[in-house]
Amino acid sequence: MKIWDISRPLSEDMTVYKNRDAKRPRRTVTMDYSRGSYFESRLDTDMHCGTHLDAPLHMIEGGKTIEQIPPGDLMGPCTVMDLTGVKEKITAADLEPLDIQPGAIVLLKTANSLREDYDPRFVYLEEDAALLLASLPVRVLGVDSMSVERDKPGHPVHKTLMRAGIHIVEDLRLGDVEPGAYFFIAMPLRIRGAEASPVRAVLVRGMKEAAL
Amino acid sequence: MKIWDISRPLSEDMTVYKNRDAKRPRRTVTMDYSRGSYFESRLDTDMHCGTHLDAPLHMIEGGKTIEQIPPGDLMGPCTVMDLTGVKEKITAADLEPLDIQPGAIVLLKTANSLREDYDPRFVYLEEDAALLLASLPVRVLGVDSMSVERDKPGHPVHKTLMRAGIHIVEDLRLGDVEPGAYFFIAMPLRIRGAEASPVRAVLVRGMKEAAL
Repeated sequence: MKIWDISRPLSEDMTVYKNRDAKRPRRTVTMDYSRGSYFESRLDTDMHCGTHLDAPLHMIEGGKTIEQIPPGDLMGPCTVMDLTGVKEKITAADLEPLDIQPGAIVLLKTANSLREDYDPRFVYLEEDAALLLASLPVRVLGVDSMSVERDKPGHPVHKTLMRAGIHIVEDLRLGDVEPGAYFFIAMPLRIRGAEASPVRAVLVRGMKEAAL
Repeated sequence: MKIWDISRPLSEDMTVYKNRDAKRPRRTVTMDYSRGSYFESRLDTDMHCGTHLDAPLHMIEGGKTIEQIPPGDLMGPCTVMDLTGVKEKITAADLEPLDIQPGAIVLLKTANSLREDYDPRFVYLEEDAALLLASLPVRVLGVDSMSVERDKPGHPVHKTLMRAGIHIVEDLRLGDVEPGAYFFIAMPLRIRGAEASPVRAVLVRGMKEAAL
């Protein structure tokens, strides 16, 4: 198997949404070798920091929580689509030529993948593109920005996708990945009641579904 | 694909090692629908709480950290082995008849899987069993206890396994899983410098490695 790790590393000095310090992960070392014979630590992190999966509760009151999403929904053949030429936002007109199929796992690689710092003008998904994806609907939408939409009052893009049952994975690291076909696996933590979770996400070649 | 979720749910009231409150995960809701138009939270958790992967740094000064473990090491064909008849500890004599192969991913299902509370007399791995696994070595050892060893000064079982390059996944939830062959996937978070990470771990049937 060949594996691409498309997860952003979690650290105290990582890039966070709008550069807000309150969003940063904090690590606490509770035991180390200066004091004992083993090393232990804790991690305190915002659920939307680094590569993460949003559950519907994030934007829809009473929506599903993260542990209610079956892990198999986040595994399967996927396509990394080349949208690096898009300037400001991804529109329905950008997606129409791509022949996206119902049930697909779709990762959109944009110019966001070419930088590591926080860009307030990041490429985002326009509402008509969300409606197109919701009409199919796709199964998973992965983006390389910290949020699928940018400062839209009422969060219509999140809501359109979530109401269609589409799982939204944000802040994927696609800079080292060529557009094309892969097997996608993303795994959120099984956190009771949470509206999101950090995920480890990978692309694999040399893995496939097989007869049971 | 058929999937078994063998991860323990993370929550504030979950069972933790030695019932120590300091080990508990803590969730903080930073925004909810009584105050705004979305829901956000943080999770503060010990790295050894619930189903988790130990990196060598946990027990070996200067050892590898969690983000240095290639994710592909934690994916592949595995066997869930039936050790539910073992009373106190798993010994080399218990493992010898099982024909464990070098490079295998081995999950040991014991009587620990039959209870949810913390049992100070949990079934653990004896040193001679660790030496047997290290002599092969296996690739991954998964256990259904919160620690692979029990109150051993100097942590010889962890160290023997880690020095052989064996990845140790602890506190798997195997109660609902029949012994047999599966495809194993466990995904730690990509936390820079950490000695361990919570993982989401699943068993899959209907997935296999394929030609690249």
